Amino acid sequence: MTDQQIHPVILCGGSGTRLWPRSRAVRPKPFLPLVGEQTLFEQTVARCDRDAGFAAPIVVTGTAHLEHVEAQLAGDREARVIVEPSARNTAAAIALAALRLPADAVMLVCPSDHHIADCAAFQAAARAAAELARQGWLVSFGIAATAPETGFGYLEQGEAIDATGFKVARFVEKPDRTRAEQFLASGGYAWNGGIFAFRAGTFLDELAAHRPEIAAHARAAVAKGREQGAEFHPDAAEFAQIASESVDYAVMENTARAAMVSAQMGWSDIGNWEALHTARGGDDHGNTVIGNAELVDCRNVLVESDGPRVSVIGLDNVVVVVDGDDVLVTTRAGAQLVGKLGGAVNQ
Amino acid sequence: MTDQQIHPVILCGGSGTRLWPRSRAVRPKPFLPLVGEQTLFEQTVARCDRDAGFAAPIVVTGTAHLEHVEAQLAGDREARVIVEPSARNTAAAIALAALRLPADAVMLVCPSDHHIADCAAFQAAARAAAELARQGWLVSFGIAATAPETGFGYLEQGEAIDATGFKVARFVEKPDRTRAEQFLASGGYAWNGGIFAFRAGTFLDELAAHRPEIAAHARAAVAKGREQGAEFHPDAAEFAQIASESVDYAVMENTARAAMVSAQMGWSDIGNWEALHTARGGDDHGNTVIGNAELVDCRNVLVESDGPRVSVIGLDNVVVVVDGDDVLVTTRAGAQLVGKLGGAVNQ
Repeated sequence: MTDQQIHPVILCGGSGTRLWPRSRAVRPKPFLPLVGEQTLFEQTVARCDRDAGFAAPIVVTGTAHLEHVEAQLAGDREARVIVEPSARNTAAAIALAALRLPADAVMLVCPSDHHIADCAAFQAAARAAAELARQGWLVSFGIAATAPETGFGYLEQGEAIDATGFKVARFVEKPDRTRAEQFLASGGYAWNGGIFAFRAGTFLDELAAHRPEIAAHARAAVAKGREQGAEFHPDAAEFAQIASESVDYAVMENTARAAMVSAQMGWSDIGNWEALHTARGGDDHGNTVIGNAELVDCRNVLVESDGPRVSVIGLDNVVVVVDGDDVLVTTRAGAQLVGKLGGAVNQ
Repeated sequence: MTDQQIHPVILCGGSGTRLWPRSRAVRPKPFLPLVGEQTLFEQTVARCDRDAGFAAPIVVTGTAHLEHVEAQLAGDREARVIVEPSARNTAAAIALAALRLPADAVMLVCPSDHHIADCAAFQAAARAAAELARQGWLVSFGIAATAPETGFGYLEQGEAIDATGFKVARFVEKPDRTRAEQFLASGGYAWNGGIFAFRAGTFLDELAAHRPEIAAHARAAVAKGREQGAEFHPDAAEFAQIASESVDYAVMENTARAAMVSAQMGWSDIGNWEALHTARGGDDHGNTVIGNAELVDCRNVLVESDGPRVSVIGLDNVVVVVDGDDVLVTTRAGAQLVGKLGGAVNQ
């Protein structure tokens, strides 16, 4: 009998500096309650609900984040964790998970640092993607574009496969503003949200075809790896030899079987404080406050404080974050530059 | 022989909320190093230099500020302190000092919460004012107006008395914007800086004429008072009966002997964070930083932090103050409202 479940593969990599000072190297973005009371990681796990047809999650993470992952899995006895001995980007991370699953298992690769407001829409898109994956497609989630974003890659929608699936005509790297506006106007482009569905075996075949060395080293790292409770530790020496490449670059852009489903699910990568402000929404004046604050004559102001009282007067479209020994004050536009600040760089 | 010295009478009253959170009830504005390394109080004392013809200062203050005053007098063995048993505004405070001086002593009444950039100009104006005071005038410093300020009282300049002195034609309460602009354009008006020169006896005579009850209770409070080292403590019961009135309202607006000298001396009352920003100046971009801060793409930004690192991106004309458990972020215009914030009100 074919496995009809969808196997969530949750990626917890990277440190992230763009939500500094709240997000820090020792307390990275996936593990913070940025929108609502659950952390982004907890929300990612919860979205892949067993009752909605998902199997137990496989989490791929590094040693630096392992403590957070295990604490926030909250005793899920079926969850499994693959501990990367070093950071080798998404192609390698996904290969490890694929090698730990049966070849016909449908994987759903989910970043753990995004926010998705509409869980039902996510699950519906996941089911549609899984159906295409079972037919041998490598499926990307195409996030319905709502703005001419220059920070995302885009998928150009090709011919229809079924009622909800399309071939990917083309992967487009981050465009400039003019092209992003053209994409948005044309309607035939979607954001590449970094969420993928494919059969484990299909993925490994395509990886072997396009990046045989990554496939071979990943296979050897798993063969020589060791289990330790719910953790699996690939062999460090083999894994270290893998080239650091994104799954998009290594596989998705090369395969002839690239498909996409359209997902309109309140997605945000929460890529900076402005995006977080949007994801959080606001009061009648567009203000959103976490912590102790007094706002006078303010609009579209985000305040987040881990303790001190923050008083803001007469400002529009600014972000004020107090965290430990750091205070950040930025315009929403300036939020793009946060990752380049001295404090964010030299954590 | 007539006493040719000028006797500085330095008033240290009020708590002040407009520079909150840096200034607080327990650490009020005169006792903070707001511009330069000395506090405003220390600068006020230093301006009245013995070498420039000033006598030892008499400081009038309340018990709440006594500790600051004595610490910041830095062992000036000649300085005297009058400790008000309660707050009764400036008419009473000046009366106490006048009663502790010989009748022919020329007093120079100086608030201790102002900044004066040009000390030589101050001293020259003080000498000119003292000369008029010796002739029996009650002399106000008229601060050359540089903006249509609505937060100050104005002096209308009358006929000339001598080369530098004029009669005061009229005292004008805080005007609205339109009138303030007219005053500025006309050139015949100056800000009332709250600095006064008169003989002690002249002041007491005018006070007795226009506010006999204040004069009588002040006299009784001093008569029943007690000395304690360099401190003088007026009688609390008598002092408590004094009406709380400003010297402007009680005496200066009523006397027929009101005169003024014009003073162009880089004066600022540092009435809010915007005024402090102006007094401090700034770098090539108009930014001024005290404490640990990183400014990116900012203009005319004031940052002051007592510890935490402050990172500011993309803002113009804002003030960021970190003090203890409070963070203030305001536009320069919003600085007017700081005193009304919950934190400032409920100190």
